[in-house]
Amino acid sequence: MTTRHSQRLYMPMPLYSGAIITPSDSQSHYLISVLRLKDGADIRLFNENDGEFLAKIAMLSRKKIELHCTDQISPPQAEPDLTLVFAPIRRQRMETMIEKATELGVTRCAPVLTDYTQTPQVNLPRLNSIATEAAEQSGRLSIPDFDEPKRLQAFCQGLDGEAMIFCDEALAGDKAAHMLAFLELRASQRPSHILIGPEGGFSDQEKRFLLDQPNIHGVSLGARILRSDTASILALGLWQASLN
Amino acid sequence: MTTRHSQRLYMPMPLYSGAIITPSDSQSHYLISVLRLKDGADIRLFNENDGEFLAKIAMLSRKKIELHCTDQISPPQAEPDLTLVFAPIRRQRMETMIEKATELGVTRCAPVLTDYTQTPQVNLPRLNSIATEAAEQSGRLSIPDFDEPKRLQAFCQGLDGEAMIFCDEALAGDKAAHMLAFLELRASQRPSHILIGPEGGFSDQEKRFLLDQPNIHGVSLGARILRSDTASILALGLWQASLN
Repeated sequence: MTTRHSQRLYMPMPLYSGAIITPSDSQSHYLISVLRLKDGADIRLFNENDGEFLAKIAMLSRKKIELHCTDQISPPQAEPDLTLVFAPIRRQRMETMIEKATELGVTRCAPVLTDYTQTPQVNLPRLNSIATEAAEQSGRLSIPDFDEPKRLQAFCQGLDGEAMIFCDEALAGDKAAHMLAFLELRASQRPSHILIGPEGGFSDQEKRFLLDQPNIHGVSLGARILRSDTASILALGLWQASLN
Repeated sequence: MTTRHSQRLYMPMPLYSGAIITPSDSQSHYLISVLRLKDGADIRLFNENDGEFLAKIAMLSRKKIELHCTDQISPPQAEPDLTLVFAPIRRQRMETMIEKATELGVTRCAPVLTDYTQTPQVNLPRLNSIATEAAEQSGRLSIPDFDEPKRLQAFCQGLDGEAMIFCDEALAGDKAAHMLAFLELRASQRPSHILIGPEGGFSDQEKRFLLDQPNIHGVSLGARILRSDTASILALGLWQASLN
């Protein structure tokens, strides 16, 4: 069956059997010049509202195509709410983090500025495009939302009592099982937030602030000091694994 | 205390109180020109046989230094045996995989060539240098060993009955809890191997071969298709988290 391995593309416009879709210029370029797909080739289109559809490529010219939606192959499917709250880190590691977070089902990405944030710039359009590509690759139907950067304290106050986990280096060496037990508890609460600090961790003042909040819980990710991107993948993976 | 954040360097030669160490040219360059450390600066040196020592920098010239070992701050510490068996993937993703595997405590990295391996070249010296840097960063004392690449089947036959987990896409959608339960079982067995396939997965023939081996066990990593580097981080993290 060709549908298993055919290319998936995220399309924000309504998808339905019979819809005729005009892809963006960059998508057209990708389909024609990178993938070298021909007239009549199969493709899959998806978004969070309509699910996933088979489509066929209709070449209008050497640079212009239309996509003809045929059958729905997956209905829309809600992801469990999961927000990755992260301090911006160096570009390549931040991009890895967002790609992996998307694969692991994050529904929202919220950059927060901390005392030790060394690279406060966040290129949201670029991160959004990385998340889109990761969604296309991984089989999910939605793209995570991105917030504008906020100060850490302002973000936490905006939680309004919702639960957040943060990965606390001071707990390194605690049994990692602690994390699992904690996550089992957490998984029953929605929405959920996981906070990952910058390289260099949180300042003492920030740690005191975080530990003072009754809805924010420090956990250990094991014996070692993990880089921010590694920590985010592991924490999100454990959270997902703890869901049934 | 300065020891908490001072630079760590892996040194393969014997370390003991009073030892005088001549770092390699590239390490000297790094200490002098990149970190701009001065005469008398603190540094930490470690290896798997001797543990970790404090040392001080003695500048001999603008390009040449010696390191004077003072006190041992950690004794040697064995890592639990854990081999990452991986099909080579594109360079940058493979490097991410090795960096993260090192942070997560892998003791051996074994590249295997599979039917769908697209990039059979493995630059072992380069991967070794990435693993060394990751060890220096993460606080571990040893550097993982690297095997020469082998065919998958040859590697499996060489296991001689030792247990190996492989991440089986065909099980995607199974409760991820399956993985946790499995890992708890696995964690009691040594040595352990975790096999990660290439982008594109295993061929049907390889899957049949793997499933036919009584010591090789397919597990699910959750509902989604994960990239090889994401899958490796999650599987290794779950394995470590399941250890007490």
